[in-house]
Amino acid sequence: MEKIRIGIVGYGNIGRGVKKAVLAAPDMELKAVFTRRDPSSLKLSESSLPVLSIDEAPNMTDEIDVMVLCGGSATDLPEQGPEFAALFNIVDSFDTHANIPSYLAEVDAATSNTTAIISTGWDPGLFSIMRALSTSMLPNGETYTFWGKGVSQGHSDAIRRVEGVVGGVQYTIPIDSALAAVRSGSMPQFTTREKHLRECFVVARPDADKAKIESDIKNMPNYFSDYDTTVHFISEEELIANHSKMPHGGLVLHSGTTGDNAHIMDFSLTLDSNPEFTGSVLAAYARAAYRLASEGQFGAKTVFDVPLSYISEKDRDTLIKELL
Amino acid sequence: MEKIRIGIVGYGNIGRGVKKAVLAAPDMELKAVFTRRDPSSLKLSESSLPVLSIDEAPNMTDEIDVMVLCGGSATDLPEQGPEFAALFNIVDSFDTHANIPSYLAEVDAATSNTTAIISTGWDPGLFSIMRALSTSMLPNGETYTFWGKGVSQGHSDAIRRVEGVVGGVQYTIPIDSALAAVRSGSMPQFTTREKHLRECFVVARPDADKAKIESDIKNMPNYFSDYDTTVHFISEEELIANHSKMPHGGLVLHSGTTGDNAHIMDFSLTLDSNPEFTGSVLAAYARAAYRLASEGQFGAKTVFDVPLSYISEKDRDTLIKELL
Repeated sequence: MEKIRIGIVGYGNIGRGVKKAVLAAPDMELKAVFTRRDPSSLKLSESSLPVLSIDEAPNMTDEIDVMVLCGGSATDLPEQGPEFAALFNIVDSFDTHANIPSYLAEVDAATSNTTAIISTGWDPGLFSIMRALSTSMLPNGETYTFWGKGVSQGHSDAIRRVEGVVGGVQYTIPIDSALAAVRSGSMPQFTTREKHLRECFVVARPDADKAKIESDIKNMPNYFSDYDTTVHFISEEELIANHSKMPHGGLVLHSGTTGDNAHIMDFSLTLDSNPEFTGSVLAAYARAAYRLASEGQFGAKTVFDVPLSYISEKDRDTLIKELL
Repeated sequence: MEKIRIGIVGYGNIGRGVKKAVLAAPDMELKAVFTRRDPSSLKLSESSLPVLSIDEAPNMTDEIDVMVLCGGSATDLPEQGPEFAALFNIVDSFDTHANIPSYLAEVDAATSNTTAIISTGWDPGLFSIMRALSTSMLPNGETYTFWGKGVSQGHSDAIRRVEGVVGGVQYTIPIDSALAAVRSGSMPQFTTREKHLRECFVVARPDADKAKIESDIKNMPNYFSDYDTTVHFISEEELIANHSKMPHGGLVLHSGTTGDNAHIMDFSLTLDSNPEFTGSVLAAYARAAYRLASEGQFGAKTVFDVPLSYISEKDRDTLIKELL
């Protein structure tokens, strides 16, 4: 079997997650990691794996079937998505929900005999699939997405920008009573405060005013002021020992009716490592991008456009026999 | 907007479920119900809805876009699937897992400028989708399917064939400790007895030997002997009052790892009415069959072959904007 030749663009947490997934996939071969840093500064445990400058990528169109873009959605992907889609089949996890339609259009305009699957991962991605399944199969209903328990990178960054804080991690936590209300079938409406709690573990500078830090965090607009927030002060050792992992997950719950009968679709995801699961989903959609391109199905696509048989390492007959 | 013109073949529980879903769908129009019975013997509450003999169906290829086949998998569909697929786009819920590949091939051979989507519903169907998503996104793992709590038609029929029984209902119930073991991430292996319980509510003939009935049920091969089974004797009134609904559901749990990190995908479905939810899924895939056929994507397909955007009543742009 010809293996699908994968390139990884950007070697942060998600890039490392994709590397792990591709190395484990029997039908894939990891050709190179591309970085904007000095390639010699990147030490990979796989000594045989080439680390190349991102500037060399355009010369490698004959050697790579799919580029997995692992940059951030704020500044990296809006530039790299269209740029790479013009030369390669690509997959990414663009996750700025409000900008997805315009990003999709830009990537689509850039593709030329290439296939791009954008916004994969778990939300957007797997959770989007759950929302689409739910509303299509039970259109008369309400869909609820909850996130956590897990580390929110954006909120952790926000804590660390507070005066007097030297380190910190923020957990987003779904509120049990809200989950129970949805599962009861009552189709409740929630305020922001009623759906999620925010719990912060903060390392303060020794001389800092802890009461002020706590108040600064709790009253921060957009990030915390609309939520019930708890702030725990801990030591740097404790932060490293107990809060260095990147767990995450969440739930997509759908409560719907057919006439007098009520039905609940209840999906939850519990991840020890957010970037490794995201990397694993990206690898599955890299397979789909390769297969779609092989069939001449070019252009920019989303998880809503890709049949599930394209993401599985099993062939269609095996899937039907074993999993249908 | 042109509405999708739907025909229903077979007016049992699932046919009634499809009727309800189609009547509620803004983009569909129910043209007729086809039956093998004397059409005048079927009393529909919708007086304007034509009930026709199944023999008239072949004359209506110009009036119906998709036929939803609601017959049973044992004898109806193996005959009707290929027969109707030659003339119409069709959807069905063929659920004899072991025979799906051969049925798919037969329906595929029969299609001619028509599209057939077979084995939709919730298992096969929605649960198959969950199994494919799980194994594709976390290939290093174990997938577990549990059914219930719900009424099993096959097992209820088996009870009613026991000497001395005048009525009965059987509930399949997942065992809590098995669910907990899977959710712990330990990837257990189960015997049949460890996954599900069977609970029977039985109305005995007044003169019947209840001990013998209980023993006949519990020792029935294939149906009960491999399970821990409980038998409750109740009155006919109690059976009608408390056991006339057709609730069902189940779970697809997937426990997987990426290196040292463990992840759980946990999907559960709780249905007040098994046939109404099945009917709702059939209606969604009828929409997909219509759209695929409109694009010239003919042949027999499964839920693994159909992009999710095809089953939603929302158009692709709206789906991407609202649900991605």
